Amino acid sequence: MTTQELIEQIKIKKSFLTVGLDVDLSKIPKHLFDLEDPIFEFNKAIIDATHDLCVSYKPNTAFYEAYGIKGWMSLQKTINYINENYPDVFTIADAKRGDIGNTSSMYAKAFFEDLNFDSVTVAPYMGKDSVEPFLAVENKHTIMLALTSNEGAFDFQTLKVDGKELYKQVLETSKTWKNSENLMYVVGATKAEYFTEIRKIVPDSFLLVPGVGAQGGSLSEVCKYGMNDNIGLLINSSRGILYASNGTDFAEKARAEALKMQQEMEQIISLKFI
Amino acid sequence: MTTQELIEQIKIKKSFLTVGLDVDLSKIPKHLFDLEDPIFEFNKAIIDATHDLCVSYKPNTAFYEAYGIKGWMSLQKTINYINENYPDVFTIADAKRGDIGNTSSMYAKAFFEDLNFDSVTVAPYMGKDSVEPFLAVENKHTIMLALTSNEGAFDFQTLKVDGKELYKQVLETSKTWKNSENLMYVVGATKAEYFTEIRKIVPDSFLLVPGVGAQGGSLSEVCKYGMNDNIGLLINSSRGILYASNGTDFAEKARAEALKMQQEMEQIISLKFI
Repeated sequence: MTTQELIEQIKIKKSFLTVGLDVDLSKIPKHLFDLEDPIFEFNKAIIDATHDLCVSYKPNTAFYEAYGIKGWMSLQKTINYINENYPDVFTIADAKRGDIGNTSSMYAKAFFEDLNFDSVTVAPYMGKDSVEPFLAVENKHTIMLALTSNEGAFDFQTLKVDGKELYKQVLETSKTWKNSENLMYVVGATKAEYFTEIRKIVPDSFLLVPGVGAQGGSLSEVCKYGMNDNIGLLINSSRGILYASNGTDFAEKARAEALKMQQEMEQIISLKFI
Repeated sequence: MTTQELIEQIKIKKSFLTVGLDVDLSKIPKHLFDLEDPIFEFNKAIIDATHDLCVSYKPNTAFYEAYGIKGWMSLQKTINYINENYPDVFTIADAKRGDIGNTSSMYAKAFFEDLNFDSVTVAPYMGKDSVEPFLAVENKHTIMLALTSNEGAFDFQTLKVDGKELYKQVLETSKTWKNSENLMYVVGATKAEYFTEIRKIVPDSFLLVPGVGAQGGSLSEVCKYGMNDNIGLLINSSRGILYASNGTDFAEKARAEALKMQQEMEQIISLKFI
């Protein structure tokens, strides 16, 4: 999916919601365990119930790898299900990969070719040649960690390098990389006041924003400081939607939560584009 | 495996060699494609031919994920084969993972429980709570990126934060984390002169050293500056051993290359402990 197509979807659906498919077997409804692949069945029900309210799904690979081959199969079935049934939805493999050049090429193959995701998250620590192999793939997007939503973000990301926070240096340096137009960035919602500074460096890029909801970030604050003329935000919610209920009504309750967020987003969009 | 047991193995085998199992289907002998699982068969032959010469195997997950479920199955069969047949060998999942706390716990489950590796590599960018879930697992080891062997290492790792290179800050900060005694570090061989400085910060820790061989690093230089009283180094070689031949004699030729390295290491060890 191209960036332009993603922007179109945001306008059509009046939503910039990403649903994080972080399936924890200890939290999903017990009746799903009677089925052969509870993780996939859970995802399928969530996707069917929310696909018109969100523009993106983001499975985090950790939650699948934890269950070994079975988990990887659930991931494959999930991405295939989305691609076959809802091809207008932007898909994100939240994998936070990154390695030396020839190895990163193998990760690009894994997520862009084998699994056929639209995008993958990557870590910046290993620099240019660890990210460029992802950027080289046409019509795919590489979402690099800039400022994350967790407490540990303050350990290194906000340290000053040459008088400037590391995450700002990461943003600036990445703009010089080949095919950097294929970059998006992860910026945590728990630090809304940082968005002003970030937008000075990457005014046009899409930002994937975790941390709204369970982690305490405010949607309106993030939009106030982070939105650009194309919206430019993908707001992720995982636990708040997935685990709204752990009964047989889980998908219905998930839809209700997603709807609340979509409506809030619709209002923000309408105020933005009066 | 405990650190003490690893040190014992180094003394018994007179080797601190790690064989990186980065299996690229485009480089392995063609006759293996007649078998059901060429990647596993390749690994099995390499392992059988080198297990007495090395103390560790390190599959890089990228090379398995690139082949989807089949690849993940090859990885599982490889680690199971090592654990069943050569339990004295230290195993490293070179995965470079790292995510917010509850997600990193799932990665720890994937590599320490499901696959039962002795250790996993992690990335530091997300800080303390992204690494501590790995450190919490008893008798397992977490190998964190400090200074990598690639060109991109100079993009961020060597930038000065408060007058000190970022990788040094990463080393120092990580020592304050809970269960930090379970940490080892990745330090690239291509920058041997840096080892002196690194040893001032982490004198006792094991360092996993990629970049000897194909990437141009020198074994003797690394040992000169990086070795401690317990050796404290795991030197990785991947391509130089794996692809010594792409004929039916590949395992034999791989052994010859591993033997060369082991002999060089034996000499270094004997000079060290006169």
